Amino acid sequence: MKKIFISEIVANSYSTVDLYCWVKQARHQGSIIFLDLIDSTGTLQVVASRKEVDIKTFEIALSVGSDDALLVKLVFVNDEYHLNDIKIIAASTLNLLPNPRSDFDIFNNKYTDHILRNRTHYIKNSKQAALLSFKSKFIYEIHNYFQKENYTFVDAPVLTEMLLYEDSSAFSIKYGENDKYTAWLSQCNTFQLEPAILAFEKVYNVTPSFRAEHSRSDRHACEYYHLKAEIAWAKLEDIVKTAEEAIYTISMNTYKKSERELKILGLSYKELRLELLVPPFKAIEYDEAVGILNQHNRNFEWGKSLSTEDETFLTEHFGNKFLWIKYIPASAEGFPFSLHAQNNLLTMTQDLIAPFGFAEIIGTAEKITDKEMLYHRMEEKGKTSPDQLERYKSYIELRDSGLPFHGGLGMGLDRVVRYLTRANHIKDVFSFPRLYRRRWQP
Amino acid sequence: MKKIFISEIVANSYSTVDLYCWVKQARHQGSIIFLDLIDSTGTLQVVASRKEVDIKTFEIALSVGSDDALLVKLVFVNDEYHLNDIKIIAASTLNLLPNPRSDFDIFNNKYTDHILRNRTHYIKNSKQAALLSFKSKFIYEIHNYFQKENYTFVDAPVLTEMLLYEDSSAFSIKYGENDKYTAWLSQCNTFQLEPAILAFEKVYNVTPSFRAEHSRSDRHACEYYHLKAEIAWAKLEDIVKTAEEAIYTISMNTYKKSERELKILGLSYKELRLELLVPPFKAIEYDEAVGILNQHNRNFEWGKSLSTEDETFLTEHFGNKFLWIKYIPASAEGFPFSLHAQNNLLTMTQDLIAPFGFAEIIGTAEKITDKEMLYHRMEEKGKTSPDQLERYKSYIELRDSGLPFHGGLGMGLDRVVRYLTRANHIKDVFSFPRLYRRRWQP
Repeated sequence: MKKIFISEIVANSYSTVDLYCWVKQARHQGSIIFLDLIDSTGTLQVVASRKEVDIKTFEIALSVGSDDALLVKLVFVNDEYHLNDIKIIAASTLNLLPNPRSDFDIFNNKYTDHILRNRTHYIKNSKQAALLSFKSKFIYEIHNYFQKENYTFVDAPVLTEMLLYEDSSAFSIKYGENDKYTAWLSQCNTFQLEPAILAFEKVYNVTPSFRAEHSRSDRHACEYYHLKAEIAWAKLEDIVKTAEEAIYTISMNTYKKSERELKILGLSYKELRLELLVPPFKAIEYDEAVGILNQHNRNFEWGKSLSTEDETFLTEHFGNKFLWIKYIPASAEGFPFSLHAQNNLLTMTQDLIAPFGFAEIIGTAEKITDKEMLYHRMEEKGKTSPDQLERYKSYIELRDSGLPFHGGLGMGLDRVVRYLTRANHIKDVFSFPRLYRRRWQP
Repeated sequence: MKKIFISEIVANSYSTVDLYCWVKQARHQGSIIFLDLIDSTGTLQVVASRKEVDIKTFEIALSVGSDDALLVKLVFVNDEYHLNDIKIIAASTLNLLPNPRSDFDIFNNKYTDHILRNRTHYIKNSKQAALLSFKSKFIYEIHNYFQKENYTFVDAPVLTEMLLYEDSSAFSIKYGENDKYTAWLSQCNTFQLEPAILAFEKVYNVTPSFRAEHSRSDRHACEYYHLKAEIAWAKLEDIVKTAEEAIYTISMNTYKKSERELKILGLSYKELRLELLVPPFKAIEYDEAVGILNQHNRNFEWGKSLSTEDETFLTEHFGNKFLWIKYIPASAEGFPFSLHAQNNLLTMTQDLIAPFGFAEIIGTAEKITDKEMLYHRMEEKGKTSPDQLERYKSYIELRDSGLPFHGGLGMGLDRVVRYLTRANHIKDVFSFPRLYRRRWQP
């Protein structure tokens, strides 16, 4: 197994060292070959000189090209590593263009179709890999944050009967004898996390969530990583404070551990405007947001969800900072969210909009504890047929079993990673396309 | 938001404290009421005395029953907490029997149907919650282990076209206009982790995996948490060593952080036989395993997978320790696994069997790097129709793009949690049943 990586070879000056790696690029000038070698930790320039190696070794070195997998023996001479021996472990014959190992502008729109069709081969591009490595660290910092705050990870299933929105907006599977039963891919695991607070008080989960919508927008995906947390004995203001503390702590810890990735992506702390992440964030009510939009002739109809454009306008209006929108109308929200005590057209919700057009990234809500209110909201959303009531039976019954006031937060974590790295498009922060159907398209 | 928990109240002697909690049980003797209060951190006995509180407070205290959610004000008098004030936050009127908050034997088979039908309400049972809390810590220790060893978490999607086994063994979804496209729920994300090693060298993922099989066995579930790790430049022996180190480190760290959970479950380190987890584990070849089974008249047919009973027999035969079975026949294994260089009826695989009937918990394998060998294996598994070749196109092409020797491990982590806690049944370590269809059954 590989024991020594390029970052260690660069940091130390080993007199002799064996390295498993790939060729980033190879150039030759007469009797000298320059090999740019690459692995997951960095790049290393190695000199192969005809004077220093036998003809067979030199010829192998001459023959290698970008992306070949190698085992090389290196010696450290005059402040640089020289090739002593070389073995081709796996040649690369695919010759995709642009070369995935080269430093082309992989996020340029003109490559989108090609990259998505061939994503398997472009993950290894340094910039693409840096984004995904940042995401890996971000996901780890989510676990660090919630575990250290004594949240319990609840293994909520993907296959469920309980959906946040209508059945038609979810992917379904058939199962059982003659496919007589239907289950759906989870849209939101509040239906599992709410019962779990009766055991653990503070719970969280990070799993894929699904929406059966085909979208070419820059911020939606039909399968995405969804962080959910639910807290017993918490009011909306507590959830909001928790969400602010979580995104601040998780983001700063990720940045701290991602120096290498930010360097590859050409991002400085200054450009990234880290100060914007410091809570508390400004909050305005939905009604005020609607007023501002209409003062600026945006013809916004009260009761609808804000569009990405509306959200971008509002954050720009307030100087491009994070902005909470508070008390979203019931008409635009899922049924589990509490209604406002003074105005039952509004819900006890608060959504966080990121600046610079990155739009909504976190939703928070107090959940309904009263069975009558829940039934009323389910009725409004067409969820009170006998079949639907049977599917949500246990969730309704929870309201009869000592369920205290509580609330939760939901984060589309791919979106947050996109904001933190200023990625052009949500697809850039996914390792693989989510049902983009590239292979069927012209 | 709740700030103070029972464990802190027990550890400190606060002269006065407010506590959000539930009633575990209430008893009264004349003018004294004993309230056993519970939250996610422990239990606390509180005394309510008619002499110390007004009649209204005493009457509320008299009225509360198991599972009610309360806010109580406590004062510390004569080495115990006395009730000073009480407010019912949410009454429990469901009256399920057995009472979920009581200390009945929840894992007894006679309750199975009832518990699975009402799982939402039984998660809060202390023993059930202790198992799930242990699982939460185990999952966190997985992230700690792999992140500290510089693995990158790769967000492999659940929806995929590439399956380890035949299409009929997977759940499918339809999507697109007129449902013209099909995708499947992932059985194994080797198809995403193998390309990712070209970027990151060492990668892992923890996500639900799916098998469309209905099973009432004590160790199978159609949706389960699957840990996968893949390593570049690694041979079978390297993967095996990694797997041993991972399961040892992750398990010991989880045990260390789970003293409270083990106490609730009545498990001591001695009974748990921690010494069995110390690597290396004994390894025998599949051929030797078959010989032993047949010497003991078990009529085992060469080429088949070992059954749970065979695995249990073998671990008992070797003194009830962990046991590796090496070089499983190609006929019993998926197509991505390398064939043995000296005997192409065998694969470069090694499966770990846990003792005491807990059966297989980890699989390891070297993967195929040669395109011809891959095609040959896909042909044997019926995966070379034009449609199938199109679906696996990128995976096949990987063999043309500098893919070095590599291998991976897969762990059914629910099974490992079951072994570590000696749970009777796989269902006991899931928060919610996975498509058990309890609601449709008589």
